[in-house]
Amino acid sequence: MSTNRPLFIPVILGTTRQGRASENVARFVFGELGRHSGVETELIDIRDIPLTTTDAGEAIKDAKFSAAVTRADGLVIVVPEYNHGYPGMLKHVLDTNLKEYVHKAVGLCGVSAGGFGGTRVIENLLPVMRELGLVTIFWDGNFSAARKLFDAEGKLLDQTYVNRIDKFLKELIWMSKVLRYGRENVELS
Amino acid sequence: MSTNRPLFIPVILGTTRQGRASENVARFVFGELGRHSGVETELIDIRDIPLTTTDAGEAIKDAKFSAAVTRADGLVIVVPEYNHGYPGMLKHVLDTNLKEYVHKAVGLCGVSAGGFGGTRVIENLLPVMRELGLVTIFWDGNFSAARKLFDAEGKLLDQTYVNRIDKFLKELIWMSKVLRYGRENVELS
Amino acid sequence: MSTNRPLFIPVILGTTRQGRASENVARFVFGELGRHSGVETELIDIRDIPLTTTDAGEAIKDAKFSAAVTRADGLVIVVPEYNHGYPGMLKHVLDTNLKEYVHKAVGLCGVSAGGFGGTRVIENLLPVMRELGLVTIFWDGNFSAARKLFDAEGKLLDQTYVNRIDKFLKELIWMSKVLRYGRENVELS
Amino acid sequence: MSTNRPLFIPVILGTTRQGRASENVARFVFGELGRHSGVETELIDIRDIPLTTTDAGEAIKDAKFSAAVTRADGLVIVVPEYNHGYPGMLKHVLDTNLKEYVHKAVGLCGVSAGGFGGTRVIENLLPVMRELGLVTIFWDGNFSAARKLFDAEGKLLDQTYVNRIDKFLKELIWMSKVLRYGRENVELS
Repeated sequence: MSTNRPLFIPVILGTTRQGRASENVARFVFGELGRHSGVETELIDIRDIPLTTTDAGEAIKDAKFSAAVTRADGLVIVVPEYNHGYPGMLKHVLDTNLKEYVHKAVGLCGVSAGGFGGTRVIENLLPVMRELGLVTIFWDGNFSAARKLFDAEGKLLDQTYVNRIDKFLKELIWMSKVLRYGRENVELS
Repeated sequence: MSTNRPLFIPVILGTTRQGRASENVARFVFGELGRHSGVETELIDIRDIPLTTTDAGEAIKDAKFSAAVTRADGLVIVVPEYNHGYPGMLKHVLDTNLKEYVHKAVGLCGVSAGGFGGTRVIENLLPVMRELGLVTIFWDGNFSAARKLFDAEGKLLDQTYVNRIDKFLKELIWMSKVLRYGRENVELS
Repeated sequence: MSTNRPLFIPVILGTTRQGRASENVARFVFGELGRHSGVETELIDIRDIPLTTTDAGEAIKDAKFSAAVTRADGLVIVVPEYNHGYPGMLKHVLDTNLKEYVHKAVGLCGVSAGGFGGTRVIENLLPVMRELGLVTIFWDGNFSAARKLFDAEGKLLDQTYVNRIDKFLKELIWMSKVLRYGRENVELS
Repeated sequence: MSTNRPLFIPVILGTTRQGRASENVARFVFGELGRHSGVETELIDIRDIPLTTTDAGEAIKDAKFSAAVTRADGLVIVVPEYNHGYPGMLKHVLDTNLKEYVHKAVGLCGVSAGGFGGTRVIENLLPVMRELGLVTIFWDGNFSAARKLFDAEGKLLDQTYVNRIDKFLKELIWMSKVLRYGRENVELS
């Protein structure tokens, strides 16, 4: 690569719901991502982003979140499936930025109470990711029966997820690197 | 039909955004729906539904909104397209109810600043509507270039929309009637 | 109901692929549906519908398939997931009719080699079903790891599917009845 | 870039329908793409790809089409909207390859008889493109009322499309270059 500067890939915990199972998932993915050399990460809990609800869009941008997205080379979004769609508060947050996302990579981790690994919320997010200018990688994290996957201390109980998330993260790192090369070196011609 | 009780079909204005073009659309559709005999309607502005943002789902149900959905035979949802998806605050509201929606009809009015009539947000909402138990009719309202469609007083400038929305409303009324018949007369066997 | 005429609900086997796992699924659902009194069914294998591939749409309609859809009150579509979408040949068949589908019910059975029960192809079909005028019920059949679900004679190995498909079929029968009532008794007003 | 070898970006005409309006669109985009230096292109008409319809998937691969995709750095897919979904025969063709598509760019041109520029078929294709490993760029070609856009000789009548398709092609070329750099120089780590 052109530089040795580490990639910055924050993990977004995409729900404010009380008792959210996604928090354990986000902490797990955040921990795994942190093991990769050449990657800096940060856990962004959308609960901590102060946003008005009496308006929407770029007008209500939070400076700190925008700075994180601006700095990011890629994102992980951990997203529970609510009625086959995405949580409203996650979309409310995502819609506050636009050009900050362009030509960056995103990997999606779907979380569901049932057995289908959040596949439906992932499909539902694809057009939104694309319109924001993000490239959604073609590996996903799929966390089924998420409440049973972790113990009371938030420790992962099923180690097969470690290998699966590793493949997901390698692809995300690859795409983040490649798109950073593009942003820095290739002009629209 | 089994009864002569009027249908109740509220119109939901699905964004809290300042300067929202969807407000004129919602008022227009609300007015047209009100002309139909045998239909009662009501304009529900999601701005007026008090919801916490530190939780999500049925736990934060607003009693008045739930009562309206419970009473409803059908819904119109007026929904602007934000990054090819639905407004977060609309989803946050919709997710607070579940069984209240089951076996009822919904018609979607997409609103966009550009030329494609909110077609993409309509596609994006389909799986959510279905999971809520709502039947999305196969006519849509499509409001393109919504800022130019109304004058400063909110009066519609393009009268071709009157006829189009009339077809949409007739289909919605049909489906609302039919599903009410089903809810009241047909048992799961 | 207004008549005692049985409902007609054919099961469409939606792939021509050699070695298709969906055939066992279709035969199973067909068998279960046949147990319901007041329902006639038929297994329609899209392999048996002679269609040119040098044209598309209503121009190439097969008379027998059109007659079946015309007579139908509801449909089951058994559909494997190919690259998160629907099989091309199924869509080629579906596109040959239009008004024949209007105001009828459909239930979708997703079939996948992996663990997610064809959830993604079901999401992918929703906008198509709607545009055809079909009402997709909000229960699905989800057949994961479909090759291991049946023995060499095509006998179902996991009996938990019997109960699940029963709920799905009851909902489909309900919606088929209700919409038939609507088609026969309720006018667009 | 690492090499001066031209990019190869074929244009796929994605329907076999008689009287297809998409043919004019494909020829127009093919012509515009050919003006870009450093790009080689080719018009691939899916009518010319001999495929059996009694099977599906990689088993029925056409050697010539596979070779073109293997050589490609990016693709344009010109796709009419049939019942809000993609043409069956296009999907039948696309499903015959897999690894040939991985980490390559694709730009989608939606074609519709009506006014919404094929937006719905584009949304419907997104999950399929992703699963094939293709990166769908966030500019689209949207061809509304496609029959009136061209004269009897297939000449474009509305010159505003030239500028719009130019932006689309520049983005596609950018993404094709960037992903080629990635395929050739960046390892999964």
